[in-house]
Amino acid sequence: MQKLAVIKIGGNIIDDAEKLNSFLADFAAVEGYKILVHGGGKIATTIGEKLSIRSEYINGRRVTDSATLELVTMVYGGLINKNIVSGLQWRGCNAIGLTGADGNMMCARKREVKEVDYGYVGDITSDGINVNGFQRLLEAGFVPVVAPITYDGQGNLLNTNADTIAQEIAKAMAATMQVQLIYCFEKKGLLADVNDDDSVITGMDTEVYQQLKAAKVISGGMIPKVDNAFEAIRNKVSTVAIGHADDLHELIKGEAGTQIK
Amino acid sequence: MQKLAVIKIGGNIIDDAEKLNSFLADFAAVEGYKILVHGGGKIATTIGEKLSIRSEYINGRRVTDSATLELVTMVYGGLINKNIVSGLQWRGCNAIGLTGADGNMMCARKREVKEVDYGYVGDITSDGINVNGFQRLLEAGFVPVVAPITYDGQGNLLNTNADTIAQEIAKAMAATMQVQLIYCFEKKGLLADVNDDDSVITGMDTEVYQQLKAAKVISGGMIPKVDNAFEAIRNKVSTVAIGHADDLHELIKGEAGTQIK
Repeated sequence: MQKLAVIKIGGNIIDDAEKLNSFLADFAAVEGYKILVHGGGKIATTIGEKLSIRSEYINGRRVTDSATLELVTMVYGGLINKNIVSGLQWRGCNAIGLTGADGNMMCARKREVKEVDYGYVGDITSDGINVNGFQRLLEAGFVPVVAPITYDGQGNLLNTNADTIAQEIAKAMAATMQVQLIYCFEKKGLLADVNDDDSVITGMDTEVYQQLKAAKVISGGMIPKVDNAFEAIRNKVSTVAIGHADDLHELIKGEAGTQIK
Repeated sequence: MQKLAVIKIGGNIIDDAEKLNSFLADFAAVEGYKILVHGGGKIATTIGEKLSIRSEYINGRRVTDSATLELVTMVYGGLINKNIVSGLQWRGCNAIGLTGADGNMMCARKREVKEVDYGYVGDITSDGINVNGFQRLLEAGFVPVVAPITYDGQGNLLNTNADTIAQEIAKAMAATMQVQLIYCFEKKGLLADVNDDDSVITGMDTEVYQQLKAAKVISGGMIPKVDNAFEAIRNKVSTVAIGHADDLHELIKGEAGTQIK
């Protein structure tokens, strides 16, 4: 089976030009098939404030009204995506930027209104990933660079979490390829002690995870993230690695970060 | 030889949701290989004003400073491009949005500073068009939707005239395909009398053009446009048609607008 690396880069790296450039150089040097999924970054908030688009938050989650959807389409799909694409091209990587609408690559469902209306937010599952479309692009020599915007199949774009997009792409592509899923952020991995950046939990299988959960080493917001990683593994993704953007090559080789198997 | 239609849609149509939707339905129904090139539209100016980005004009041409480049990257490459792409996908057309950086599709040169510095403006020739890249996308089943932003080959995006992009893509692709170049705007074609919308000059060859120029029927800003059309013809583009966005199918069939051969 062909190998594929699905790599997600978070907003904290995107907001820092120097860190981003360093990451793009590392990403460009990754061999074989690869897909980059990027998050948002603070620049959307800055530009939104100038445009007097005030984001409403409910339970800590941003509500995407139509003005906010236009904002993220511009900033994530335009500004950030194209800056990453041109930065990668400059480093010899044949990047092509995508939202979910481009090539009908990622179809999501507008989140159902229950108690809360989150607006134009899309929930995506691996069924919504256009596996054949991604394969055709990869085989034609392109490196997809994916913005966190999906498509509802009916002419509308939707704001979608980048972590989830990366995970669902990885799960969907795992049907025909040997897929590694790598989350790059500003920490060296999942930490046993949140106050000690060097306390990285290097490896985790289900058994270790249960022990760490029981001991409350892993708690709160980390639990859904790790649950998602194990769900990816159950869906034939070979490995999930979580670690520092500076360690991309080591993360791929299984020599850094938290490796989930 | 495979046929290809390169179709350019202007800002006046993009600014009007109803006209745009009608055009997208027509474009989606065009058979065979096709590429859509879109212009800007007034929304960039509106958003620019809100962001306090004031465009400077020299000799009627906008100067693209770095803030303006960010603005057009967001609005042309993000908002407008993705709205067109999602609108086409909804109509069953497998659109994929591109700037010049995506797939290294369109390399331009930053305009040399002589008396005037136009800033981040790119001048493109057919040498800068990635013919192989466009062919691979077309053959893989995608319909390129091109924003008026090119790439300098060194990590930077450049603001570029959409008419010129359409023309240079048509010329470059004409080396291996049978190419029609169609300019869609809000008039029925080139007019013999600017005050009479029905005075369309239906056909034009070099001889007729010289006569119309001598009689000052074609003058001023029309001359470079028509010169460019004839240059495309000299570069093996089969036909160039200029006409109303409502008449797309008739323009392609040679039954409407100004047909230049």
